[in-house]
Amino acid sequence: VTAQGTTNQEFIDQVAGRLFGERLESEKRTLTHLNDINLAHVIMLRETEIIEAGVADALLVKLLEIDARGIDALGDLSGNEGLYLAYEGSLIDELGIEVGGALHTARSRNDLGATIHRMHTRVQVMLLLDAVLGLRESLIHKARSHVATVMTGYTHFQPAQPVTLAHWLLAIEAALSRDTARLIAALDRTDALPLGSCALAGTDFPIDPSRTADLLGFGEILDNSLDAVAGRDYATETLAACAILATTLSRAATDLHVWYTHEFGYFTLPPALSGGSSIMPQKKNPVALEILKGRSAQAMSAFETTLMAQKNTSYSNVVDVNRESLRGFDSALEVTVDLVDLMHAVVDGMNVDKERMASQAAVNFSTVTLLTNFLVRERDYSFRAAYQLVKQVVETATQSGYASTDLTPQMLDDAAGRPLEIPDETVREMLDPERNINSLKYGSGPAPSWCSDILDRRAEDLKRDEAAIDAIAGAVHSNRRRLLEQAREIVSR
Amino acid sequence: VTAQGTTNQEFIDQVAGRLFGERLESEKRTLTHLNDINLAHVIMLRETEIIEAGVADALLVKLLEIDARGIDALGDLSGNEGLYLAYEGSLIDELGIEVGGALHTARSRNDLGATIHRMHTRVQVMLLLDAVLGLRESLIHKARSHVATVMTGYTHFQPAQPVTLAHWLLAIEAALSRDTARLIAALDRTDALPLGSCALAGTDFPIDPSRTADLLGFGEILDNSLDAVAGRDYATETLAACAILATTLSRAATDLHVWYTHEFGYFTLPPALSGGSSIMPQKKNPVALEILKGRSAQAMSAFETTLMAQKNTSYSNVVDVNRESLRGFDSALEVTVDLVDLMHAVVDGMNVDKERMASQAAVNFSTVTLLTNFLVRERDYSFRAAYQLVKQVVETATQSGYASTDLTPQMLDDAAGRPLEIPDETVREMLDPERNINSLKYGSGPAPSWCSDILDRRAEDLKRDEAAIDAIAGAVHSNRRRLLEQAREIVSR
Amino acid sequence: VTAQGTTNQEFIDQVAGRLFGERLESEKRTLTHLNDINLAHVIMLRETEIIEAGVADALLVKLLEIDARGIDALGDLSGNEGLYLAYEGSLIDELGIEVGGALHTARSRNDLGATIHRMHTRVQVMLLLDAVLGLRESLIHKARSHVATVMTGYTHFQPAQPVTLAHWLLAIEAALSRDTARLIAALDRTDALPLGSCALAGTDFPIDPSRTADLLGFGEILDNSLDAVAGRDYATETLAACAILATTLSRAATDLHVWYTHEFGYFTLPPALSGGSSIMPQKKNPVALEILKGRSAQAMSAFETTLMAQKNTSYSNVVDVNRESLRGFDSALEVTVDLVDLMHAVVDGMNVDKERMASQAAVNFSTVTLLTNFLVRERDYSFRAAYQLVKQVVETATQSGYASTDLTPQMLDDAAGRPLEIPDETVREMLDPERNINSLKYGSGPAPSWCSDILDRRAEDLKRDEAAIDAIAGAVHSNRRRLLEQAREIVSR
Amino acid sequence: VTAQGTTNQEFIDQVAGRLFGERLESEKRTLTHLNDINLAHVIMLRETEIIEAGVADALLVKLLEIDARGIDALGDLSGNEGLYLAYEGSLIDELGIEVGGALHTARSRNDLGATIHRMHTRVQVMLLLDAVLGLRESLIHKARSHVATVMTGYTHFQPAQPVTLAHWLLAIEAALSRDTARLIAALDRTDALPLGSCALAGTDFPIDPSRTADLLGFGEILDNSLDAVAGRDYATETLAACAILATTLSRAATDLHVWYTHEFGYFTLPPALSGGSSIMPQKKNPVALEILKGRSAQAMSAFETTLMAQKNTSYSNVVDVNRESLRGFDSALEVTVDLVDLMHAVVDGMNVDKERMASQAAVNFSTVTLLTNFLVRERDYSFRAAYQLVKQVVETATQSGYASTDLTPQMLDDAAGRPLEIPDETVREMLDPERNINSLKYGSGPAPSWCSDILDRRAEDLKRDEAAIDAIAGAVHSNRRRLLEQAREIVSR
Repeated sequence: VTAQGTTNQEFIDQVAGRLFGERLESEKRTLTHLNDINLAHVIMLRETEIIEAGVADALLVKLLEIDARGIDALGDLSGNEGLYLAYEGSLIDELGIEVGGALHTARSRNDLGATIHRMHTRVQVMLLLDAVLGLRESLIHKARSHVATVMTGYTHFQPAQPVTLAHWLLAIEAALSRDTARLIAALDRTDALPLGSCALAGTDFPIDPSRTADLLGFGEILDNSLDAVAGRDYATETLAACAILATTLSRAATDLHVWYTHEFGYFTLPPALSGGSSIMPQKKNPVALEILKGRSAQAMSAFETTLMAQKNTSYSNVVDVNRESLRGFDSALEVTVDLVDLMHAVVDGMNVDKERMASQAAVNFSTVTLLTNFLVRERDYSFRAAYQLVKQVVETATQSGYASTDLTPQMLDDAAGRPLEIPDETVREMLDPERNINSLKYGSGPAPSWCSDILDRRAEDLKRDEAAIDAIAGAVHSNRRRLLEQAREIVSR
Repeated sequence: VTAQGTTNQEFIDQVAGRLFGERLESEKRTLTHLNDINLAHVIMLRETEIIEAGVADALLVKLLEIDARGIDALGDLSGNEGLYLAYEGSLIDELGIEVGGALHTARSRNDLGATIHRMHTRVQVMLLLDAVLGLRESLIHKARSHVATVMTGYTHFQPAQPVTLAHWLLAIEAALSRDTARLIAALDRTDALPLGSCALAGTDFPIDPSRTADLLGFGEILDNSLDAVAGRDYATETLAACAILATTLSRAATDLHVWYTHEFGYFTLPPALSGGSSIMPQKKNPVALEILKGRSAQAMSAFETTLMAQKNTSYSNVVDVNRESLRGFDSALEVTVDLVDLMHAVVDGMNVDKERMASQAAVNFSTVTLLTNFLVRERDYSFRAAYQLVKQVVETATQSGYASTDLTPQMLDDAAGRPLEIPDETVREMLDPERNINSLKYGSGPAPSWCSDILDRRAEDLKRDEAAIDAIAGAVHSNRRRLLEQAREIVSR
Repeated sequence: VTAQGTTNQEFIDQVAGRLFGERLESEKRTLTHLNDINLAHVIMLRETEIIEAGVADALLVKLLEIDARGIDALGDLSGNEGLYLAYEGSLIDELGIEVGGALHTARSRNDLGATIHRMHTRVQVMLLLDAVLGLRESLIHKARSHVATVMTGYTHFQPAQPVTLAHWLLAIEAALSRDTARLIAALDRTDALPLGSCALAGTDFPIDPSRTADLLGFGEILDNSLDAVAGRDYATETLAACAILATTLSRAATDLHVWYTHEFGYFTLPPALSGGSSIMPQKKNPVALEILKGRSAQAMSAFETTLMAQKNTSYSNVVDVNRESLRGFDSALEVTVDLVDLMHAVVDGMNVDKERMASQAAVNFSTVTLLTNFLVRERDYSFRAAYQLVKQVVETATQSGYASTDLTPQMLDDAAGRPLEIPDETVREMLDPERNINSLKYGSGPAPSWCSDILDRRAEDLKRDEAAIDAIAGAVHSNRRRLLEQAREIVSR
Repeated sequence: VTAQGTTNQEFIDQVAGRLFGERLESEKRTLTHLNDINLAHVIMLRETEIIEAGVADALLVKLLEIDARGIDALGDLSGNEGLYLAYEGSLIDELGIEVGGALHTARSRNDLGATIHRMHTRVQVMLLLDAVLGLRESLIHKARSHVATVMTGYTHFQPAQPVTLAHWLLAIEAALSRDTARLIAALDRTDALPLGSCALAGTDFPIDPSRTADLLGFGEILDNSLDAVAGRDYATETLAACAILATTLSRAATDLHVWYTHEFGYFTLPPALSGGSSIMPQKKNPVALEILKGRSAQAMSAFETTLMAQKNTSYSNVVDVNRESLRGFDSALEVTVDLVDLMHAVVDGMNVDKERMASQAAVNFSTVTLLTNFLVRERDYSFRAAYQLVKQVVETATQSGYASTDLTPQMLDDAAGRPLEIPDETVREMLDPERNINSLKYGSGPAPSWCSDILDRRAEDLKRDEAAIDAIAGAVHSNRRRLLEQAREIVSR
């Protein structure tokens, strides 16, 4: 009798039931992939004459029924060994062991599970890519409306130089286009078939994996059966891409969070994306941004948790890697989709206060760098000499509580120790934020002229990425249709 | 129209509904804590005359009904602002705003949420402690049966010196007793009341937090209202304790996993804790151990994920910390309970092959250290000189394919370059694993004599920990009973 | 010949030299601890007559010389097996194997290394505690000057209610006092002696570990020799405490970073803690705060890295745990000291703009919660009814671009739909930030009256913590003195 | 006066000196990259006539001197603002502000630092790729010798089916070839020039970034100046690739560690890669494998630490990201190189006991799956029916303590309940490990025939990867040569 007041065996059974039993439930979500694989496997086994046509056809009829009716086409599923053996058990009950028992010829749950997870990953990553493309489109769309929306650009959260809102939006979009590339690369690495590798050692049945790959829409076959059942680096690569993406989103949300403060006041959010207080009547909390920042941690850490589960395990089929390490995989991808969609909603919904943005940029000394450059170009100062002169002017001015709009030619002359002969309107012009952004057209700066070019290029890149992803998604879907057609065609002969 | 083919507003609403709406569902699990807090808060508000007795009594009647009937006592709960405002809305609908609207006087969702999470943590940690004590009891129980079960002790997974199975079991138990202490310390740090801190700035209503603390069974009141709503370090401290515990379990499982291999063959597991193969008929996979090793990663990483969510947030009430960072808290504690229970089941269920253990220890040279010590004590060698002599003997012997049982006095003489005059039976004796463990009685070694003393001490420590936890649990329960009684007593006056 | 164009053996030797050789260098930093342990061990071995007095005395003379002269008292140290064997080799070279070879009697590098790391941890944690106490003192000191410095309190970075700067400073101090408690707990867990546990199995020499513990100032002896060499949870517990502390510092720095922006403008930093730009003449970047935020990640992740290295290792003496997992330990503690010192410098050096703080709090509607409470107290509204009324007033006002100072009794009457008969000066008073903080004296709020009490209590707590740490440090130092005296006394007999 | 007994200012200066001062030292390692960039920048500024030819030439002469003489060509470097301003200061001291002060025209430390880190990453990743290719070559080389070395293949560390050592070696090599692809992808993403983006907003000087890119050997120019200074995802992508690689190495090391145990006894390590004990004379600890397993945690966690530092920072130039988050970058890459080299040394140095491997595979029932398949092919059983029959045979046999070599046709008949008429030699043959591996030629199994084909393909892939990396490295080197030549040519005109 243990602490729990049960006999040992009862305690053991209770714990095992609780911890092993959940496997069946969680695997039920992958029934479609399992059934598709079974269809392809049986067609291949029939063609290679590893199983007899009659047996194969009886199986195919049932598999097509499962495809049509789903889980209800199977009897009671139970046990602690997961979906496949419960599924096979149901087939054996219905079709007899000579038919139902033939399905698993020349394979194992190891290569089966590896194949299911790759098919599942393919779908999950495409859903994520869809969301990412939506956000990128939204950023580009918003940027088009803000090509000339002048705002303060910050470094270290200190006013640096004027930029445009479009410039910030396109910086985020640039990062997301690299995230897209990383996710597509992960998808590409996922596209290799482990089926046929069986337990870890392949088989002595003369199977035709290239036929199975073709039926299931895989572009490649893994050439080492041990690697095929042991490796899950396509999954960790996917999670790394999610983590990097989530980090960028947390950074973008941090900018927005600061800009949303009462003190900056650069934009408001629609009621659906903000929240009130239960006690303070005046509150409009940027809940959407806080969720973005906080929840990104989950997408950022799933990679590490997965690696940690895989650390110091055998490079083979082991439960630690093939089930435990991937326990958080789906939730990491779903959280990443949520983050992307939430940022998409924020970008769509943000209501920008252009006047506030522009007026801040006019007074906070963010324009003095171009005044410095003017001295280099027009008054023959070296850059550092000009910089020191302007620095002195700014220090004197701020000590007197002046804004940048208060700077005068005289102050420059005083600092220079000689008349620089700069007309007042030139100083005004140099310090004008709008003129600043129009001048900042080199080095990929915010100038509207450059920005418009970039916008077109980005829209094209987006289209290219959409086409690439549509091609993959289309192939997956048409393949599936073709697989079912072939199965139907065989049984209808 | 966005990528999703919806207007912006529809997309925004859909995303907000999906991401904000889940809050209500997840908070429903904490209804009991919320209702208890409301009871205590209303009693305090009534006693301090902040709200009128009539209003208070009407509220208490309803709160007692909710306590009795649960969520069904509330009408339709809905909205994106979580449980409390839905709950209050339901009260206002039923009792009118003058009564229902009085419940939230002198508090906020911020201190309320902080208090709920501390009460929740208290319960979760006690459940975990219960499981840990069960495992410790099981280890001590098993150790009692294996005080004299000789086995090879390994360092670096190489045979080192003989120990007993009890020695290993008690090493794990020692680590777990420190984990217990860390969890109790975290529980202690959790035991401080934030209620009354309101949004972040306390209140100008003359509340009596010490009365509320007393009614809710909190031992302390937090003395800074900003800290009270901002800090969640009791929760991260709890997760750190779980992570350290899970690491130890992963290490214990690693020892067992290696000992379970066909090549070591030290024990078997009951069918409930192992698994077969779908293809290889001979398989008995140690699934329980693989789950332990793999799933420990989840308990190990939840701390980091939580900190990451809290990083670079305001030290105040923010969604990132108070909701997002704690999203994985429950699952981390549940996973830790699962790990502890699973190790408990493994320890209970393992079937030890004592003969195999003993026979391996006899042949694998793990006993030569005591032969070395013999030369120090009886032949006047310094330790290093004796070590070098025996090292040479072992090298020669292993090159000839000998086992440690094959060593002879002659071999020692040959290495020494002189007759050491050690009788053959002395060499036998020195190399006997059982004699080894009986001699290893200093420095907390495995000697059965020392082990028996320790077992008694550990049993006492366990009792002490059980008493401490029972006291806390008892206080929580009796407090709750007392709270309900007081509420009933007030309304029945 | 390998890719590197070397024969295999050369490549192997080069890699081994590079990776194993660094051990000696890194262990040299712990020479003092090693030598102290050797002194204590030899005294104990002499007293228990495990080694002869003459041998012991010869060793003690040399050990005292090493204590006096340091590493120079040893000859050339080399090899890939770390400090101890090099050190012993040097002793054997000088004193002969009969003396030098006796030092390692009844112990192993395993218990030795475990003991050294605990002594090292003791020192490192005390250095960190010293820095933490310094920061806490600085916070309390600064708070004393700002008990009445009104500022906006934020939740979600939105104006919430007025607080004082002292209130924020004391919130951080409260968190740090819990960090102190956690570090002291870790120090306490470190205070147990592993020496005598030898390789993993204790010894058959009749050693007296309690004597060694006494000589080395350890309060406890570990009672299981396997646990003693396998466990490092005192170290991971220490790292968890550092991680939690660093998270709090990152949060405090985040508040300060936002307050430092041009738009908030609440304080400036001295030149030593800020940085300029190489291009933008106006820049004053808060580099100290960015370092604090960024570098905290290192202190936050060292725990996880350490656990990861320990995952799935044998619960025994293994290189993964005892060396590899602790590779980042020192740097994590040093980084934490840096973070604490840097925050200390920031708190000391920040130059607060009280007027700016006060003027912002006056206009940003952060005072309307107390106006709401007024309606509850004086106009018989339930809290929720009053809240709804004020919410409507604020919404109307902000739509008209009003500040909170613009609110009038008429606006309240309009929202109420009836005359509330609130004098204009009462509305002014309710909306006055200074009056707000004076009223917020319940629920641990910012009221100067409450704050002053708390300040005294915190100063006392700080003194208590200082005394506790001084006691530990004093004991460590006096113990060391006593150890050396005893050794000197023995050899001078 | 603070706790440290210093005035505030002294304490502040001391902390700032300690924490800011280290920047200069750490940046000195990148002097070559800085100087190369300066050369390219000046040539571009001269060609675009942004600075005068005379000024440019004076600068180029000095820069070429720095290239030749290194850091000694610069005067005293000091200050808390890092290498660049110290370097520029030295130039101004020597050449005057009109020349030295012109170097920084049309750029900032922000784009400069971003460019330096990309050039640095390029070098570091190529060093790592070099090591990875070396390990892959070693694995292929070793595999060629072990195409027919039969050993037990394990799943869950239980005997599964026979494989060959080559099969395992090639599984690891397959994973490493994907790691190579990920590192090359990261290298590709690194190959984009940020220079010209200046602080964050580009410039109004008419610079020619494509010319600079050409001079520095960058293939692409970043098209958004904010993204250019803010983004470091090429670096995190690199760290993710290292983490995935390190995880695989930890898994390979785990297999080897278990195989190295006394109980498995599959191979030995050369003395250089193993270690002894200071107390136990018989020890041969696999230190190399333990370092591999333990230290992999550092490479695995650097990604997470880096992301954590970047979390919730502004998407702009900030110290948290651009300096703090990358503090562990170099050490992560160096550790990864160490791990790869150490595994390379282990693979080169391992001395395999083929007989032990083969004899274990013969007795541990790992061959019964092919016996099962035989029943399917030759006795018309469905797979599941055959499996159940063999499972029963194995259970009966193991209960009697039989090895797989003891199985007889009679046992099969008994289980089948009818004579199966299988000749004894057929049973022998089916259960022979060597025959097993020869048959396992489908599904990418271990059959030597398949393995030989794969070996050739892998050797080709390796050559292709070597060529790709050589091309990149060659381009980097020849570019640098070209850059220096152009500079020399200009100044010698």
